[in-house]
Amino acid sequence: MATMKEIAELANVSVATVSYALSGKKNVSQAKRDRVMNAVRLTNYKLNSIAKSLRTSKTGIIGVLAEDIRGLPVPEIVDGISQRLTESGYQLLLSNLQLLSKLYNRYEQLSRYIGSVNRGIQLLEDARVEGIIYVAMHDRRIDDIRQPAGIPLVFAYADSDDPNSVSVTYENQRSVAAVTCCLIEQGHRRVALIAGHPASPVTKERLAGFRAAMDGAGLPMPPEYLRWGDWEYRSGFEQAGALFALTVPPTAIVAMNDAMAAGCYAQAALQGLRIPDDLSVVGFDNQSFAAYLYPPLTTIALPNKQIGLTAAQRLLWKLEGKPDVPANTVLPCELMVRESTRALPGAGQPRSAR
Amino acid sequence: MATMKEIAELANVSVATVSYALSGKKNVSQAKRDRVMNAVRLTNYKLNSIAKSLRTSKTGIIGVLAEDIRGLPVPEIVDGISQRLTESGYQLLLSNLQLLSKLYNRYEQLSRYIGSVNRGIQLLEDARVEGIIYVAMHDRRIDDIRQPAGIPLVFAYADSDDPNSVSVTYENQRSVAAVTCCLIEQGHRRVALIAGHPASPVTKERLAGFRAAMDGAGLPMPPEYLRWGDWEYRSGFEQAGALFALTVPPTAIVAMNDAMAAGCYAQAALQGLRIPDDLSVVGFDNQSFAAYLYPPLTTIALPNKQIGLTAAQRLLWKLEGKPDVPANTVLPCELMVRESTRALPGAGQPRSAR
Repeated sequence: MATMKEIAELANVSVATVSYALSGKKNVSQAKRDRVMNAVRLTNYKLNSIAKSLRTSKTGIIGVLAEDIRGLPVPEIVDGISQRLTESGYQLLLSNLQLLSKLYNRYEQLSRYIGSVNRGIQLLEDARVEGIIYVAMHDRRIDDIRQPAGIPLVFAYADSDDPNSVSVTYENQRSVAAVTCCLIEQGHRRVALIAGHPASPVTKERLAGFRAAMDGAGLPMPPEYLRWGDWEYRSGFEQAGALFALTVPPTAIVAMNDAMAAGCYAQAALQGLRIPDDLSVVGFDNQSFAAYLYPPLTTIALPNKQIGLTAAQRLLWKLEGKPDVPANTVLPCELMVRESTRALPGAGQPRSAR
Repeated sequence: MATMKEIAELANVSVATVSYALSGKKNVSQAKRDRVMNAVRLTNYKLNSIAKSLRTSKTGIIGVLAEDIRGLPVPEIVDGISQRLTESGYQLLLSNLQLLSKLYNRYEQLSRYIGSVNRGIQLLEDARVEGIIYVAMHDRRIDDIRQPAGIPLVFAYADSDDPNSVSVTYENQRSVAAVTCCLIEQGHRRVALIAGHPASPVTKERLAGFRAAMDGAGLPMPPEYLRWGDWEYRSGFEQAGALFALTVPPTAIVAMNDAMAAGCYAQAALQGLRIPDDLSVVGFDNQSFAAYLYPPLTTIALPNKQIGLTAAQRLLWKLEGKPDVPANTVLPCELMVRESTRALPGAGQPRSAR
């Protein structure tokens, strides 16, 4: 592919004239313009990023700043982003911060890595992206990162205190309330909760959803039924063990994620309890393995791809100057009814799978 | 950030002079150069992609063409690529072909989507990437895609018939042979295999590894012990059922991936067989759920991140003009010994976990 310099030489004009002829920003005589266009055709010069940049100051590139491409929801979110950007003729510059091994589930410590985040934003700015989508690996509020200068920033799977920011997240509270209501409708009265890391805002939201459902049904929540895990399989295993050891154990467990639900399965198997005959279990996340557990786990699917599609759409709206782009969009989750819950005898029919 | 035109106006020189002063490609008087550099400092103009492109014809951008960012090994491979590129000051332009839902496990039909692949290569070329890394979602040979013009192409998780291509893959045959040998060392003589899709080259390689281990130990492979699955959980469930129904059932099953191994677990649970007491099971892939099954699954971990790191390194070597860049690199896998196998009585001690 020819450079502008080569075209200038071929057309016997200055590089600036090539730039003006291609950009239309300044008058160029018809003769010179024809020479440039001929040279362009001769060299099969495509309006590449240089020419395009000079013409419009636009690169056609959107930056995606991912906390970690390996993070649970991240590949699906990036899939949605890439689909919408491709449809609109944009390309995707990926900056992968690799925070998973550094932060793990201690994401309240993001501030320790704020320098990495801000460097990532700077690198994307230097590459002249037209906008940035920040993809978090844990849903939470992010409020101390540097705003990129003059280009829009959209948060996916996170939101921000910044009144000018745009974010796309999902329904935590309502989703846990819905799955808890399912168990209650199946006749369960003794429902326990294995919560995520206590410091996590997601834990607080999901706990509020659980409480709302239990309160709504007038059911008690004895303190020994609220167990604190840390999102990991092992904590689900241990907390399920503590629940099974109670004098009056629960008939159903809501685990705040699938990994802890899998830990419940292992503890149940170890103690000879059958799911769902002796115990109903539900999870959250709809990880690929949820369908591979025995019995397949009822859980909640996050709208990850839709978060990506929506975040990209919000960014494109910002670039188009559309007024009233929603500041925060909260997308619904989907209940995936499988075979890990069962109605208690005398409680009527279980809800059928959809 | 100022444009070159703004700098030219501020310095009272032509845009071409700004370009020459910044690129050093043509002599510019010291006075004009000083005026340009002052203007650059005044406007806080960073040597952005336009100036950089004009200076060196290099964009500092590497294209990653991913068959699907959601594909099983893809996020980890991209993680490795991004790490090595960042270390070397390159940025990563991601083109996501979204072939997962189109191809699923019928990847022998890639040729039907060759147009998408070639358009992806074209888009990356148009964005003036300096090289392309093709990231496959299934390990196989790819030989009919368009070679990008004048820039190197490296295959990750795939190889190519093209004698000029560079590829990085992993050891299939030796890995399955190793895990089969473990079972044999534990005293298992009746070892069955649940294979992947028969048309898959990966199936053929893993089958060869299994046969090599069995032949090496002088063990028979009755035809009814070779079961054809399709990589999916359901096929593992069904084929395990067929194996358990045999007059002389196996004492151990090698499943060619973790999903089919999880299917074996479900069938065993359904039939009241305990793993590993009544049956040993091993998988392949080390998916996240392998450690969440009960008991945790012994399996083989792919060197996905290392594939990404190595592929990026090979590409950087190509860009540096290093001679003798290896055409094909085959990386070893790691055996993850967990709790799904047990030595048969009288067969000595099981291998300890590492």
